Amino acid sequence: MKIGILGTSIVGKTLAGKLSSLGHDVMIGTRDPVATRARTAPGSFGEPPLSAFLADQPAVTLGTFAQAAAHGEAVFNATSGQATLEALALAGAANLDGKVLVDLSNPLDFSRGMPPSLTVCNDDSLGERVQRAFPGVKVVKTLNTVNAYLMVAPGQLAGGDHTLFVCGDDAGAKAWVTTLLRDGFGWRDVLDLGGIAMARGTEMYLPLWVRLYGALQNPNFSIKVVR
Amino acid sequence: MKIGILGTSIVGKTLAGKLSSLGHDVMIGTRDPVATRARTAPGSFGEPPLSAFLADQPAVTLGTFAQAAAHGEAVFNATSGQATLEALALAGAANLDGKVLVDLSNPLDFSRGMPPSLTVCNDDSLGERVQRAFPGVKVVKTLNTVNAYLMVAPGQLAGGDHTLFVCGDDAGAKAWVTTLLRDGFGWRDVLDLGGIAMARGTEMYLPLWVRLYGALQNPNFSIKVVR
Repeated sequence: MKIGILGTSIVGKTLAGKLSSLGHDVMIGTRDPVATRARTAPGSFGEPPLSAFLADQPAVTLGTFAQAAAHGEAVFNATSGQATLEALALAGAANLDGKVLVDLSNPLDFSRGMPPSLTVCNDDSLGERVQRAFPGVKVVKTLNTVNAYLMVAPGQLAGGDHTLFVCGDDAGAKAWVTTLLRDGFGWRDVLDLGGIAMARGTEMYLPLWVRLYGALQNPNFSIKVVR
Repeated sequence: MKIGILGTSIVGKTLAGKLSSLGHDVMIGTRDPVATRARTAPGSFGEPPLSAFLADQPAVTLGTFAQAAAHGEAVFNATSGQATLEALALAGAANLDGKVLVDLSNPLDFSRGMPPSLTVCNDDSLGERVQRAFPGVKVVKTLNTVNAYLMVAPGQLAGGDHTLFVCGDDAGAKAWVTTLLRDGFGWRDVLDLGGIAMARGTEMYLPLWVRLYGALQNPNFSIKVVR
């Protein structure tokens, strides 16, 4: 199917590569496609710049946020938490309405150094803010608790014996996302926490995640809910 | 050794029973021992009242917060998060100074219904507040991420194949606590996150914990850090 991905970071590129390899017609959206394509520096995690990625992935196209949102029958938000609401505004409610929006963002604030704090937490979440800002969209929060490589290849760690969370208000949207996570990405344990307000729980896990990253010195970890 | 436990809830009682069974000389502290002993209603989790617990555990004694703190060579804070700083003030810095204080509290606010929110998070934590209020005490935050029964019997779930976190500024205090957790309680995977500021991570996991409890309808779960 046609999928739009908002954001060109390691998360957006990794998702795009995986979804394209599964046969989906993927367009990545960015604020300024010409400027993004012109960049030659490696990404934040040392990965090749988007131009090199696109050269390796001829089936993946690049457009504006609005073009990618219009292209997708489902849309993935892979922008940083600080940029999410603006990127979605640029994508446009008319291009998103009625669609599943898979929200991977975390409201991380790096401005005060490491480890980052959250810009929203406790009595609200970024997932809820997105849902409130775009009431016609079926927001499903997931994939925000693991690093990019693990996201689409959970089996590389402990044979996939760890847990991913989903939440959202639309049962059909969650069912579609869960099938993609299981059959497409290989997640064996997808745990449905409930409505989009449950995003407070998974986003507030991030302060533990960043400290585990610090203690383990390696982002290739995950948690298994043992029950 | 002599151990003081502050708090008479299911957490305090479960800890007291386990530590006494390990041969330690345990005194539980409460605000008003006469009133606490006179209560006949079951505890919040349906467990027997403290009087029945003490009748079953003749080696465990009951005193004020100050008496229990003075009794202990190490002290466990098992009061609710909202009561913690006041209970420790009643225990008295002079009775705590120089000792290990194992802090199990979580800053949960149930006043707005379920699931609870946190009274402190993101740029501070209750563990840090305790350490700042009692700079002469060696605070070790641990055991706040699992329910009371699992705390002292991790092996009952998946043979103990799940993770417990410790953090604190004093390496010797953490080493003592870790040995007790491993050899006394049976924790196989005790992960040291660093200084007491890492309590922000484990306390902010609670919003996920309470939502997992809601989704699983059973508190007998834990997380394993798969790495």
